[in-house]
Amino acid sequence: MGLLDQIEYPTDLKKLDKPQLIQLADELREFIIDEVSANPGHFGASLGAVELTVALHYVYNTPYDRLIWDVGHQAYGHKILTGRKNRFHTNRKLGGISGFPNRSESEYDAFGVGHSSTSISAALGMAVSAQLRKEDDRHVIAVIGDGALTGGMAMEGLNNVGVQNANILVVLNDNDMAIDPNVGAFKEYLTDIATSRPYNKLKDEVWNMLGKFNRLGPTAQRLIQKVDNSIKSLLMKQSNFFEAINFRYFGPIDGHDVVHLVNVMNDLKDIPGPKLLHCITKKGKGFKQAELNAAEWHAPGKFDKNTGLKIKDDDGTPKPPKYQDVFGHTLLELARQNKEIVGITPAMPAGSSLNIMMKEMPDRCFDVGIAEQHAVTFSAGLAAEQKTPFCNIYSTFMQRAYDQIVHDVALQKLPVVFCLDRGGLVGEDGATHHGAFDLAYMRSVPNMIVSAPMNETELRNLMYTAQNYKEGPFSIRYPRGRGMLIDWKQPMNDLPIGQGRKVSDGEEVAIVSIGHPGNFVQQAINHLKSEKITPAHYDIRFLRPIDEDLLEEVFNNFQKIITVEDGTIIGGLGSAVIEYAAEHGHRAQIVRLGIPDKFIEHGKPAELYRMCGFDSEGIMKTVKEIVSA
Amino acid sequence: MGLLDQIEYPTDLKKLDKPQLIQLADELREFIIDEVSANPGHFGASLGAVELTVALHYVYNTPYDRLIWDVGHQAYGHKILTGRKNRFHTNRKLGGISGFPNRSESEYDAFGVGHSSTSISAALGMAVSAQLRKEDDRHVIAVIGDGALTGGMAMEGLNNVGVQNANILVVLNDNDMAIDPNVGAFKEYLTDIATSRPYNKLKDEVWNMLGKFNRLGPTAQRLIQKVDNSIKSLLMKQSNFFEAINFRYFGPIDGHDVVHLVNVMNDLKDIPGPKLLHCITKKGKGFKQAELNAAEWHAPGKFDKNTGLKIKDDDGTPKPPKYQDVFGHTLLELARQNKEIVGITPAMPAGSSLNIMMKEMPDRCFDVGIAEQHAVTFSAGLAAEQKTPFCNIYSTFMQRAYDQIVHDVALQKLPVVFCLDRGGLVGEDGATHHGAFDLAYMRSVPNMIVSAPMNETELRNLMYTAQNYKEGPFSIRYPRGRGMLIDWKQPMNDLPIGQGRKVSDGEEVAIVSIGHPGNFVQQAINHLKSEKITPAHYDIRFLRPIDEDLLEEVFNNFQKIITVEDGTIIGGLGSAVIEYAAEHGHRAQIVRLGIPDKFIEHGKPAELYRMCGFDSEGIMKTVKEIVSA
Repeated sequence: MGLLDQIEYPTDLKKLDKPQLIQLADELREFIIDEVSANPGHFGASLGAVELTVALHYVYNTPYDRLIWDVGHQAYGHKILTGRKNRFHTNRKLGGISGFPNRSESEYDAFGVGHSSTSISAALGMAVSAQLRKEDDRHVIAVIGDGALTGGMAMEGLNNVGVQNANILVVLNDNDMAIDPNVGAFKEYLTDIATSRPYNKLKDEVWNMLGKFNRLGPTAQRLIQKVDNSIKSLLMKQSNFFEAINFRYFGPIDGHDVVHLVNVMNDLKDIPGPKLLHCITKKGKGFKQAELNAAEWHAPGKFDKNTGLKIKDDDGTPKPPKYQDVFGHTLLELARQNKEIVGITPAMPAGSSLNIMMKEMPDRCFDVGIAEQHAVTFSAGLAAEQKTPFCNIYSTFMQRAYDQIVHDVALQKLPVVFCLDRGGLVGEDGATHHGAFDLAYMRSVPNMIVSAPMNETELRNLMYTAQNYKEGPFSIRYPRGRGMLIDWKQPMNDLPIGQGRKVSDGEEVAIVSIGHPGNFVQQAINHLKSEKITPAHYDIRFLRPIDEDLLEEVFNNFQKIITVEDGTIIGGLGSAVIEYAAEHGHRAQIVRLGIPDKFIEHGKPAELYRMCGFDSEGIMKTVKEIVSA
Repeated sequence: MGLLDQIEYPTDLKKLDKPQLIQLADELREFIIDEVSANPGHFGASLGAVELTVALHYVYNTPYDRLIWDVGHQAYGHKILTGRKNRFHTNRKLGGISGFPNRSESEYDAFGVGHSSTSISAALGMAVSAQLRKEDDRHVIAVIGDGALTGGMAMEGLNNVGVQNANILVVLNDNDMAIDPNVGAFKEYLTDIATSRPYNKLKDEVWNMLGKFNRLGPTAQRLIQKVDNSIKSLLMKQSNFFEAINFRYFGPIDGHDVVHLVNVMNDLKDIPGPKLLHCITKKGKGFKQAELNAAEWHAPGKFDKNTGLKIKDDDGTPKPPKYQDVFGHTLLELARQNKEIVGITPAMPAGSSLNIMMKEMPDRCFDVGIAEQHAVTFSAGLAAEQKTPFCNIYSTFMQRAYDQIVHDVALQKLPVVFCLDRGGLVGEDGATHHGAFDLAYMRSVPNMIVSAPMNETELRNLMYTAQNYKEGPFSIRYPRGRGMLIDWKQPMNDLPIGQGRKVSDGEEVAIVSIGHPGNFVQQAINHLKSEKITPAHYDIRFLRPIDEDLLEEVFNNFQKIITVEDGTIIGGLGSAVIEYAAEHGHRAQIVRLGIPDKFIEHGKPAELYRMCGFDSEGIMKTVKEIVSA
């Protein structure tokens, strides 16, 4: 029986001797490899944080001490050591545990995460609360990666921590990676301090000077040593950004030496105020392939844990492409023709497939780091100079840049093309990652074109159209995953902006959809044929400006209307159609299908669509209800 | 005839000799004082940037060189020197020039601003565009205050600039102030480097050591000098945050020495890549009262330029209080009773009136700097520990924290009380500052309570109610400026959440309003009495959850309904009422009044309400139209 078998909660962990922690870390790593190879999830980050996780729970008194994992990709070990080992096989499954720390799941998950760079702010809130209550024995720990530190919010947090003097430990889990390799000047700075470059450089120069005293004898040499020490301690303090903003900086230390981590953390427990512990770790640590290619093994899908070969669920039949790849290839195709096009991504070159253009045109693509706000306003600056920026941001992360969309882009009518990837339900990543709100929050922004393609051809045509639109911003949202068309790479056409299309004729009921769920509508209509029910189907294509001619046609011909969208039911397409009816005195029964007014948990996309009632079955059911009403 | 009279555009400025710039700066300062004393606007910031402005336009080739003013409070001098001197008396007036740089107003306004911390990102976009086009002679300059540098977005920009190696000059206008005194660890760091503290401290220690060599004779002394220089140059480089992230750092220099500024900028023009020029300035420079109390003179209203006395438009009659002060006094009142209450503001203690509580309870109030994202998640951390945070953020700036509201607060059902100040049209600050979108963007957030008081009593009662609500976040939005009730300080009551109220009985037409515009409705109803038209009036009070009983009553009794809100017409109260009707099969004519689907410029609030058609006249007009239809 291994050590991990004996551990249900951190109290069990604390019974081990320090040297046993090495074995425990190995076992925990094996457990993660076993589980994630069979049940896909985030992989590399948790492997890199195994020793940190063991040390933190060994040293600190969780859950009384508050432990916050930034983003949470790295928290599998934490979940396994805090009562969820036996449920870990349900990770990311419908009804199972969440892939991210989640307050409603465990008291050990001090703060729910998913989006980047929130941990320091939340930790400060908790530390200040402890301060106000004079709970001096309570520690608050934020574990944040060097990638997440790029997000401006983390800097806002650091800036505030440095003057609150609260009892906080920030553990900087420095692995040089976000999901893709981390970028930015600050990352380079971290590498510099990790390798003590400023100190070493200064020391060399000073030493060269002082060396000339050497001939002066042993007294001088002792003095030189003293000078050196003095410079070292001062320089380490003064040249360090974290020290400069009132953190006590410790490190860099090896984040995989669990015994050393425990010793250091034990020392840190007695030091009050803001502290930063800089740990150097390796993403994917302990699994060779993941160490060698950390980006690819961030979330690898199923794999053979012995061979390290990924297990494709490929049955050999041709499949439609991912929307992401359609975006990537199409953008490159357009950029070859249109030299003004540039591509922008906040730290998602692989996930968005912008890396396709990046490979051929590195000078025209910009990975700006985890920095959505900057990504949008940087794009605005480019657009102000008549470049044509395609700014690709996941819908859920675009929430970070809502103000920049309004204030820096739309207000100035700057022609930024927003490609909102992962619009709608994303599946296993769950509530923190669903792109549920963008249709609603984009619809009320003046000057904005809001569109969503029903399939790959439409995506290509919308991108083709957007590049030529110079009156203001143009947003195109599409879902995570595969489209519908095997033979997707067709010549592109300009689309009339604000014009939808009739997909199929019908009677009695009209279904108006936007985006990919239009395919669910088509499936429903096909199934309904046998029951002699033939709803008409319109793909509105543009939520803003909405196609009033199309809506006139719908309202003039139908008394029963269903709207279908992969977004919150409040404020999106359904609302737009209802508002149009009210404004123009149309009277029809309108049923809205979409994401209901609550946060949707994790599960397979198909399961979630069904749950929300806008998969083909849900649509069929609604059609039948409305027809028989 | 003065020098300023000869200057219409920067080309005229360039004809002056360097020494004449001192006189010009004086005249420009006098001009600003003359104008702003008579026509209120932002004052201190522009006085502090006079020499910077003159030097920048003297040295750089604007508008070919791109000059971006962060926030823009400081850009009056810029406007006056770039063709808008003769229109400057129309500043902030309806139809006049904008109080902020605005691309549609002048080609010299390279980027529109208003919200903080955007300039570096926009500048990078422009610089990268120049780089791609090989316009090596084009300079891009961002002028940013130390306050705005607190915003995480600025850090995101710096982080990216440091690896793009584009030709950018960031002018750090360091005056130790945001609107209120600047706060945070980074500001302290800037003060440290401005006063060379790290270097001086190191030098002292090293000197003490090296001093012991002195007795060794002149050779040793020369060596000591060399060591000192070596340490100095290295330490200045390595210990400087900006140098560490790949900027060339220059300064600190006196931002009021215009000739020195010109000389330095002329040198900087020849240095490629990212550069930061650290200028020390004084907010309010040249006007004694403003220098002595920069916060109060940020935007002082009318004043006597000779005596420095503010001119109150007080006619002696008692006036209703500002909503801001009602918030401030009420929060203190609640906090005295409820020890869990804490107050949070991102850099607006005076503007929000949180300073009232701050004065009595400094330990329970937190000015976190210009950092809305952090403010919200810091509040979430406090709420997770059962504190009761009242997080006060202007509606327009809350757009910065939309993601944090969704992801960190609402998803976790954390009981943060959001006080959305300046909801709706704010008046003279114009398009960048109107709180037009919050009702719409808050309404689609699950778990959120969305409310708006019609008057001071209602605000107090909502605050009283919110402190006891523990199921999730509770937002209360109220406008800029005065309420309606002289005798506002009444005992508070708990309000039933999600329950509106009938304000007045009526027939034929029902008006459903939210928030302060309910008073315009009452005015309209009073006026309509003489015409024998008596609409009913309902104050919905809660947009979410909406009062379905009240709406049933409305729909069951009225076929004509008008909704009134001080927010975008898309997605707010009007949309909610229409959606309710559609969902419950109610058929009525519904007319929505609110902010139309476009950005509204600056002007007096009353002028803007009228323009948007929801002042009392607009409401009367709509009632008459709907009645006679």
